[in-house]
Amino acid sequence: MPTQPLSQKEIEDRLRELPGWSVGADRLTRTYRLGDHFAATALVVHVAQIQQELNHHSDLTLGYDTVALAVTTHSAGGITEKDFELADRVERIAPGHGAN
Amino acid sequence: MPTQPLSQKEIEDRLRELPGWSVGADRLTRTYRLGDHFAATALVVHVAQIQQELNHHSDLTLGYDTVALAVTTHSAGGITEKDFELADRVERIAPGHGAN
Repeated sequence: MPTQPLSQKEIEDRLRELPGWSVGADRLTRTYRLGDHFAATALVVHVAQIQQELNHHSDLTLGYDTVALAVTTHSAGGITEKDFELADRVERIAPGHGAN
Repeated sequence: MPTQPLSQKEIEDRLRELPGWSVGADRLTRTYRLGDHFAATALVVHVAQIQQELNHHSDLTLGYDTVALAVTTHSAGGITEKDFELADRVERIAPGHGAN
């Protein structure tokens, strides 16, 4: 059974628990600024490992000292529980944003 | 002295030596498909290290098994020698595209 997309209200309710995250074009987005290139590269690898564990992959863009995430569920055509699970996991490990 | 952007003709001449690369919106672009998520993540790290060595950073986007590069020189407002140097270095290390 494919995962169902969340309603706009469900998305807004969930976003309150994820300060710094936004919704746009059927994606949850956040850009982390890490302060240097090495830290940003390390975060990409860590997020890639989490994506592998969740079997849920979204585009990650590495800039000089930034990592931008655009999280969506292509197969559902929208934002699902899985997307919030990934965002929440990333939020917990991103440096300065909580404990690993 | 800031690096000068290359002319359209210079860019077209150089692109002949880089099959698979394209030019668009003042950027050299190429997407590599690696076949699995781990290989794509590894390529991001390798390219990040090359960018650090060249002190020339451009956006890298990691998809499930893809790495997309968009290479430009912001300070010059266009495509420069530095961009071709980075593209050439990446081309030589990308799996299936040559020897390291």
